[in-house]
Amino acid sequence: MKFHGYFRSSSAYRCRIAFNLKGIRPETEFVNLRDGAQKSDAFRELNPQGLVPALETDGTVLTQSLAIIEWLDETHPEPPLLPPDAVGRAHARAFAQIIACEIHPLHNLRVLNYIKQNYGQDQAGADAWCQRWIGDGLNACEAIAAAQTHGGAFTFGDTPGLADICLMPQLFAADRFGLDLTPYPRLREIRQNCDALPAFADAHPAKQPDAI
Amino acid sequence: MKFHGYFRSSSAYRCRIAFNLKGIRPETEFVNLRDGAQKSDAFRELNPQGLVPALETDGTVLTQSLAIIEWLDETHPEPPLLPPDAVGRAHARAFAQIIACEIHPLHNLRVLNYIKQNYGQDQAGADAWCQRWIGDGLNACEAIAAAQTHGGAFTFGDTPGLADICLMPQLFAADRFGLDLTPYPRLREIRQNCDALPAFADAHPAKQPDAI
Repeated sequence: MKFHGYFRSSSAYRCRIAFNLKGIRPETEFVNLRDGAQKSDAFRELNPQGLVPALETDGTVLTQSLAIIEWLDETHPEPPLLPPDAVGRAHARAFAQIIACEIHPLHNLRVLNYIKQNYGQDQAGADAWCQRWIGDGLNACEAIAAAQTHGGAFTFGDTPGLADICLMPQLFAADRFGLDLTPYPRLREIRQNCDALPAFADAHPAKQPDAI
Repeated sequence: MKFHGYFRSSSAYRCRIAFNLKGIRPETEFVNLRDGAQKSDAFRELNPQGLVPALETDGTVLTQSLAIIEWLDETHPEPPLLPPDAVGRAHARAFAQIIACEIHPLHNLRVLNYIKQNYGQDQAGADAWCQRWIGDGLNACEAIAAAQTHGGAFTFGDTPGLADICLMPQLFAADRFGLDLTPYPRLREIRQNCDALPAFADAHPAKQPDAI
């Protein structure tokens, strides 16, 4: 199993947490997104979309972080990353998708480059853009997380799962773009609980060999 | 089961196709996104994110189209919407996520409103924005779809599934924003095959009671 990632990519970060929770250590290749290495012919042969993460396994290449994590959970079931019941899984996946489908796509590198180059935005303008979309999404995440009555340390219970795997990289990005996290007490509490686990702490961007 | 949707929402359109493929007819409520009905207190109580689709079922509310479709596939397994093997499922989910996580979030209404209001873009500017992101994503989708060797009518085989469910609304949006689909021969072929099925044809935005 060979994992192609980049220290600061939220979606690579999600996969790293999932691998750690499963106790799996894939071989790792670093793709330097700032240098455009993901656009090289060699990398595009691996992933036509030219994005990290990509996972070489079973004679094929898997892409898209949520698909990789679901594959990992199906092929390495312990500990489970999704609840045992269909409704529970739907809620966990929806929480993950608020982040993966509604927040993160709006603040990735190619989009920020576009609004800087085409709409004349400086870093402050880009930060305002990011804060708007991250704020909208985290409002929903906080409402959902705070409404849970399970009393556990993580979003959907006593053990970390897909929702927490997506939440932690998103809060890291929120910090990067200067969003005030005061309005999100339950999300901050979950972050503290995740931070206490080596699976999450070891996956942090600052701890990766390609961190700059 | 009560489904809250809007005729032109890509993610509601995905769910409609999935319901039709399963032969399920939920009661339907229409949420007029142009009037901002999704931001009302009543709707936000249903879905704190203020987005369609939302599905009331089993005493709870499910949100996010891909989570709803996976729930539907788990609770109503026939006909299956995902391949039987873990690697096949990973590829189908990744294709769906290229659309749901990389393309669609960039051209939804709230984002187009933002670039018009904050960056002074007119409709031509908004179309250029949409064409860039839809084009990038469909390039990847075409490469993946064209590389399949199964010889079937749909993205991943002889029967329609999650990938096709996401592809059709995305091609509809591509047309709306004036993207030339000539570079995507395999995707156009799949579209023709989907169009021939009532499950897809009946889910088309123009056929919905709230279409304007």
